[in-house]
Amino acid sequence: MKTIKESINLHMTFLLAPLIFLFLITPQVLAGPPASRPDPEDAPVFARWLVNQGSWGVLGTLAQGRVPFGNVMSYSDGGSGFPYFYLSTTLDPTGFYALRNPWSSLTLSEYTLGTCNQADPQSPVCAKITLSGRLRLLPQNSKEAAFAEAALFADHPQLAGFPKQRGFRVFKLVITNIFLVNKYAPPRNLTVYQYLHSII
Amino acid sequence: MKTIKESINLHMTFLLAPLIFLFLITPQVLAGPPASRPDPEDAPVFARWLVNQGSWGVLGTLAQGRVPFGNVMSYSDGGSGFPYFYLSTTLDPTGFYALRNPWSSLTLSEYTLGTCNQADPQSPVCAKITLSGRLRLLPQNSKEAAFAEAALFADHPQLAGFPKQRGFRVFKLVITNIFLVNKYAPPRNLTVYQYLHSII
Repeated sequence: MKTIKESINLHMTFLLAPLIFLFLITPQVLAGPPASRPDPEDAPVFARWLVNQGSWGVLGTLAQGRVPFGNVMSYSDGGSGFPYFYLSTTLDPTGFYALRNPWSSLTLSEYTLGTCNQADPQSPVCAKITLSGRLRLLPQNSKEAAFAEAALFADHPQLAGFPKQRGFRVFKLVITNIFLVNKYAPPRNLTVYQYLHSII
Repeated sequence: MKTIKESINLHMTFLLAPLIFLFLITPQVLAGPPASRPDPEDAPVFARWLVNQGSWGVLGTLAQGRVPFGNVMSYSDGGSGFPYFYLSTTLDPTGFYALRNPWSSLTLSEYTLGTCNQADPQSPVCAKITLSGRLRLLPQNSKEAAFAEAALFADHPQLAGFPKQRGFRVFKLVITNIFLVNKYAPPRNLTVYQYLHSII
């Protein structure tokens, strides 16, 4: 007959085994976006790297509520995975359009990082990503607006000199869909949850 | 009394004077897009230079007929001012979307040319242009499709290796609207007619 202590040990083993197993199969969670080009097979980490290392892209909104209109914009994600923008609501149409219809997409190319070697910008091995969702004006004096503005001005010091009285405000792209191509294959299967939780 | 010959000469002078005047005030028409950065004040020539010197941008279409979707694409204008693309109608959503709703925009940044000096990509002195219009599939075996394909493959040799059996076809952006920022000023006032006729 087993002693009570032996019985508890046995139960603990049965209890811990699945936990240990779970720990082993859970994808590695990184602390912050990686600095060097990740394995293209690891689509969520690759996407976070591309967005974090990139500094500008094309922000698409709807003109007159129905026609696609892209505009060159700098951005920063501050390591969060969410692109933040510093947009005028009076000088430039993009901020103006977003206040009327928030559906937007940010598109960027790995070509801007200089890591595509000899690949053409349209080659699938020169990665491209499109983050789609709703472009939201962050409330002034909110913690997130302060965080985003600090990240934007650190990455793009010239934005800090833009005239605040011309309606420059911080916007956030709240992502609902991700389109990523980074190899000779169809667009990667990648959820927003995987993208946001691949690194901490 | 004037002789008949003198009378004809006088009439010819009156007839030619306005023509000579018109010739003098007509903006200079260039033979082909300029190779070096034009004066930002000359918006039509600047726009033609930017489009001709650029090699890739973000092509925006409507996903599900209502949501903006940008996609990194190489292009060539072959000196014509019209951007041509080599898009798959089966592998990639952009060609697929354009066949359903042709409204599109091509956005590019002078930043990709390396002529912005120290200016941020979002600075107005680092030029950006958005050509909006309808993205049209060119008829196969047409003269224009052959011209466009030759220009695309010359500028982007890797495109020539893309699998034709996967539905790669030549598309043309038929421009109806031009958005150009190239100095500390509101977007330039620039018509498609001025853009197309500033150079020959």
